[in-house]
Amino acid sequence: MFSRIASYLKRKPLLVAPVVAVSAAAAIVPILSPASTSTAEPRQPAPRDQNQNNSELVDNVVFAIHGGAGTIRREDLTPELEESYRKALTRAVRTGYRAIEEGRGSTDAVEAAINTMEDSPLFNAGKGAVFTTDAQNELDASIMDGETLDAGAVTGVTHIKNPISLADDLMRNSRHVLLAGQGAELYAQHRGFDLVTQDYFFTQRRWESLRDAKNGESRFDFGETNTVGAVGLGPNGNLAAGTSTGGLTNKPVGRIGDSPIVGAGTYANNETAATSATGTGELFIRQAVTHDISALMDYRNLRVDRAANAAIDKTEEIGGEDTGGVIALDRDKNLAFVFNTEGMYRGYATEDGDIVVKIFADE
Amino acid sequence: MFSRIASYLKRKPLLVAPVVAVSAAAAIVPILSPASTSTAEPRQPAPRDQNQNNSELVDNVVFAIHGGAGTIRREDLTPELEESYRKALTRAVRTGYRAIEEGRGSTDAVEAAINTMEDSPLFNAGKGAVFTTDAQNELDASIMDGETLDAGAVTGVTHIKNPISLADDLMRNSRHVLLAGQGAELYAQHRGFDLVTQDYFFTQRRWESLRDAKNGESRFDFGETNTVGAVGLGPNGNLAAGTSTGGLTNKPVGRIGDSPIVGAGTYANNETAATSATGTGELFIRQAVTHDISALMDYRNLRVDRAANAAIDKTEEIGGEDTGGVIALDRDKNLAFVFNTEGMYRGYATEDGDIVVKIFADE
Repeated sequence: MFSRIASYLKRKPLLVAPVVAVSAAAAIVPILSPASTSTAEPRQPAPRDQNQNNSELVDNVVFAIHGGAGTIRREDLTPELEESYRKALTRAVRTGYRAIEEGRGSTDAVEAAINTMEDSPLFNAGKGAVFTTDAQNELDASIMDGETLDAGAVTGVTHIKNPISLADDLMRNSRHVLLAGQGAELYAQHRGFDLVTQDYFFTQRRWESLRDAKNGESRFDFGETNTVGAVGLGPNGNLAAGTSTGGLTNKPVGRIGDSPIVGAGTYANNETAATSATGTGELFIRQAVTHDISALMDYRNLRVDRAANAAIDKTEEIGGEDTGGVIALDRDKNLAFVFNTEGMYRGYATEDGDIVVKIFADE
Repeated sequence: MFSRIASYLKRKPLLVAPVVAVSAAAAIVPILSPASTSTAEPRQPAPRDQNQNNSELVDNVVFAIHGGAGTIRREDLTPELEESYRKALTRAVRTGYRAIEEGRGSTDAVEAAINTMEDSPLFNAGKGAVFTTDAQNELDASIMDGETLDAGAVTGVTHIKNPISLADDLMRNSRHVLLAGQGAELYAQHRGFDLVTQDYFFTQRRWESLRDAKNGESRFDFGETNTVGAVGLGPNGNLAAGTSTGGLTNKPVGRIGDSPIVGAGTYANNETAATSATGTGELFIRQAVTHDISALMDYRNLRVDRAANAAIDKTEEIGGEDTGGVIALDRDKNLAFVFNTEGMYRGYATEDGDIVVKIFADE
């Protein structure tokens, strides 16, 4: 990775050149001679995972969240860290449930619950986001309203404390659905959002993860992303879903995964389900996982958990094992947790206010 | 729009501040006080268009293209301009057809055909792209291989002569699917792409369109995008699809439409069809139009043109009339042109090498 980092740093200033030279008369001005080395990372053909997914169907659910699926083993979590996660998951579920109970609507509930996880350093969203290969935090988020199919999403934002709230504002107040980087932050300024500096997102834990990745002490891990998401059903029968993430540790600058992509990381339709995904974003984009779950329910009349299992299986067909998971809530209050990894941070609240949180596959 | 532009220019330098201040110790540093005015553009609830779509089904087709759907009237095109478009469409179709005939594969054919339209100032892709509200050209493109479901896409690139070729390189040589802005251009430099300065993309026609939009002499037009796309069927039975665009005249900085989104602007699956869309990107994202066409064929066993009509109807349900169109080619060489606008620049080549190009709905 070092040569790649070095060349990033070496070339970066040169990228500014054409902007300065916009008014130059030349037709085509080469900026760089071809790079002498390629950083291509060919995809590995992956065998189909024959194992069953971890799949749970719970009824009478009005709100649910996830905090990422991945290689989560008991031996990797200290009792203290495990307890911290369970408290944070419980807080997020309670926050969303209360919003539903107060009749604030499912999109508000999804935003409020995700805000608590964005503000917690435990999750890879907002505070505590992972670092790109250029040691920055680039955040993605999306939210969707199942009644209107309105959606809002932002990608590559670097100064937004709560990206899901910016996505929600875009959904409610703009004709546009997806804004990237500086443009998203210009919109945020127009809308009165306070922007934060990059150091706000810093955590020692994620910084060390970047160091480990660059020192080859961890594989380029698609497994444990700590992406966060939420799904809710409002008293009016409206479904909503949202997802927020910092992406992958050591990801290339500008890499976009499934989280900000409507139909890949997030989808909601009152006729089918509200779904948030977490895992290997590239596979989830190529299989349009969250829209596929909606389509399988709509066109094949599959039950929500069967649709979710089928969609996760498709990511295994192109990506092998441990691709990730989804949470999906249908309009009849049936919640599906489906993941093919060793664990998924997750929780839900029933109509009666019972709150359950889980981390490991065998819970 | 003027106040908006002014505030863009006024605030832009401030955006750099946090980057400079990354190492500052402060936890949360407000960069801007809330904007005094909102630039929110509420979505208009739109009536369902009861008119039939323009729909054509052609058999024995191995390659097809579009150059955008929209308000295209004979009285708006001079005979000279109409002839120029027909020649450019014919050239693009022939280029793709020859690549198929030479056995180069459908993804190569799609890339080659789109390259000719990116290089033509007539289309809103590459040379001749429209301008953002900040008077820049921000380009999007995506390509997908129907055999492997591999995909590559770039968004917001500003110095790439042929964005579809960068998307194709990403598909073939990276584990990632979607790269944005500077990150996509860093990747391009690593891969040896020549970068061009913004003036390469300049055309007086598009510059005047931006001036007209800012002077209120044209509505913020989702109708005629001149986005380009192509679909092909290789001799090995492999389907591929690709799309390339400059987006919308006067679009906000960082706005991403459907063109670079797998499942919205572009999708290909050998089991169903290869599809490229053009139109109101936000609606196509919210309905995941190209993946929906694939799902309708797969799960409902709909014929390609019926699936395409159903998917376009869904964009009308949320967006009203004149939302755009799609081209879709199935593995049995059935091509569907479906659009609800007054015209779509389009063309195809049959297995036997017959080439047909059309512009208006009544051709």
